[in-house]
Amino acid sequence: MAGKTTEREPDPGVLYGGIEAGGTKFVCTVGTGPDDIRAELLIPTRDPAATFDGAIRFFRQFTDQAAPMRALGIASFGPIETRPASPSYGRIRNTPKPGWTGTDVVGPIARALAVPIGLDTDVNSAALAEHRWGAAKGLLSFVYLTIGTGVGGGALIDGHVLQGLGHPEMGHMTVPRQEGDDYPGACPFHGDCLEGMASGPAIAERWGRSATELRGADRRRAVELEAAYLAIGIRNIVYAIAPEAIVIGGGVSTIPGFFPAVRAACRSVAGYPGLSEHRARGFIRPAGLGQRAGVFGALLLAREAVESSV
Amino acid sequence: MAGKTTEREPDPGVLYGGIEAGGTKFVCTVGTGPDDIRAELLIPTRDPAATFDGAIRFFRQFTDQAAPMRALGIASFGPIETRPASPSYGRIRNTPKPGWTGTDVVGPIARALAVPIGLDTDVNSAALAEHRWGAAKGLLSFVYLTIGTGVGGGALIDGHVLQGLGHPEMGHMTVPRQEGDDYPGACPFHGDCLEGMASGPAIAERWGRSATELRGADRRRAVELEAAYLAIGIRNIVYAIAPEAIVIGGGVSTIPGFFPAVRAACRSVAGYPGLSEHRARGFIRPAGLGQRAGVFGALLLAREAVESSV
Repeated sequence: MAGKTTEREPDPGVLYGGIEAGGTKFVCTVGTGPDDIRAELLIPTRDPAATFDGAIRFFRQFTDQAAPMRALGIASFGPIETRPASPSYGRIRNTPKPGWTGTDVVGPIARALAVPIGLDTDVNSAALAEHRWGAAKGLLSFVYLTIGTGVGGGALIDGHVLQGLGHPEMGHMTVPRQEGDDYPGACPFHGDCLEGMASGPAIAERWGRSATELRGADRRRAVELEAAYLAIGIRNIVYAIAPEAIVIGGGVSTIPGFFPAVRAACRSVAGYPGLSEHRARGFIRPAGLGQRAGVFGALLLAREAVESSV
Repeated sequence: MAGKTTEREPDPGVLYGGIEAGGTKFVCTVGTGPDDIRAELLIPTRDPAATFDGAIRFFRQFTDQAAPMRALGIASFGPIETRPASPSYGRIRNTPKPGWTGTDVVGPIARALAVPIGLDTDVNSAALAEHRWGAAKGLLSFVYLTIGTGVGGGALIDGHVLQGLGHPEMGHMTVPRQEGDDYPGACPFHGDCLEGMASGPAIAERWGRSATELRGADRRRAVELEAAYLAIGIRNIVYAIAPEAIVIGGGVSTIPGFFPAVRAACRSVAGYPGLSEHRARGFIRPAGLGQRAGVFGALLLAREAVESSV
């Protein structure tokens, strides 16, 4: 990596494990960072016990070595209790994913592997990775949004993940319905919140095919409507958090024309007190690590777990 | 003050100055905190030069003493550039207040008094004071909202004021119009943003009298509509920032029935992923310092200016 950095480089002799625990698959990785992945396993997300079992067997290979895996980071789908002091630390909260509400994603793995465990949401972990290796390098504060099966957002402020009473759930912000749009919304909890109107499933239901399969006039109209809803969400995030940049990842953000449309929609609503920096191209920027940000972030959570356990 | 505190108490021999620079008046104070105000002067806000001149003459009495005023904090109306590294540090940005757009509120006072100057917005300063002496004591993160002539919001995260590219402008978030409400909105920039729909002037224009003069059925209906808009704003703030509490001050928040109505409206829309803590009475709580939070916060800015200048 070019340039000065105040962060310590990891000891190359130390191995970390990372899990991106998603609703459809668990990505299990061993390594130190994007350029040094030693092994990886994908496990379809089934019931918790079977899924954990597969992950534990994979990581055991590395905890039993002469130079063993030092710690494991878990970047989990949410909502999940991430405050270590809470009695429900590590437990998934109310989720539409069958069988997972109330599941402890930390305890069984920690007991089986006996290494320090770091935990955060998949979105916050991706934000950490984008800050360390991706599109947010050098920023003091930014918001990371992912637009895919759901809409999620996390913020880094002075290099720290923003959290308080739980973690942010930026995808569930209320947005005014666009004129002429009668789509009821895809969110199982709110219907027409930001996620309900702008997630991948919302696009697929509206147009009869997935965002990446759309072409021609349908794609143009879909991108325009998507941009209109995201612009309201982004504007509210800017007014609440004042980030230096908005980094956007997730499958929907890879539709051709997505970023120019979102930037144009934001400029049309930004209004007071928009700074010139808000109008710059780089203020809204594509994620740099694509689908890999979550699991790379899990390796950073592992590293943090070692540092806070010594 | 009861209880343990990790913050140092100010040296009782050291005097600080504070200005709450508002759109209608400048409150100039000398002291160390709420229980130790030595002198105070109110100046109507006229053109910048005359207003600064009045403030400078007042504070000169205290910089010329044997134990002089050590520093001055300015809690200013906004939007204002508060990042010290910016070439426009201390300048008011685009404001409807005639004659003030582009005004430097720091330079003339700093040159005249030759003491370290601390600067933040009036809202952030009030948040600092509520954290130190008011309703937010002991919290790690919270959002302070003021509902008066405008709607403003600031956040403290781990004791630090949240800021990045500029400062938050929570009052200007987009909120969906409530069904049947055809009031165009009072915000000079956006019309029907949160401030446009829920500020004191919005209430006064809708009902023909000020919020505090309303009685009976009019007051009930006004409070209900106010609560509906604020609940959407608060919900979006919770989803974006995940604060431990929302502290609300400003004239509108003193209408009888305001807090129960806002709490009820929030509970009715909170939905996923509301924690039990979000439903607790104390999650949305009245400010503890009333109209005095801003100027008390200015004394804290002065203290910070001394600490960062040594």
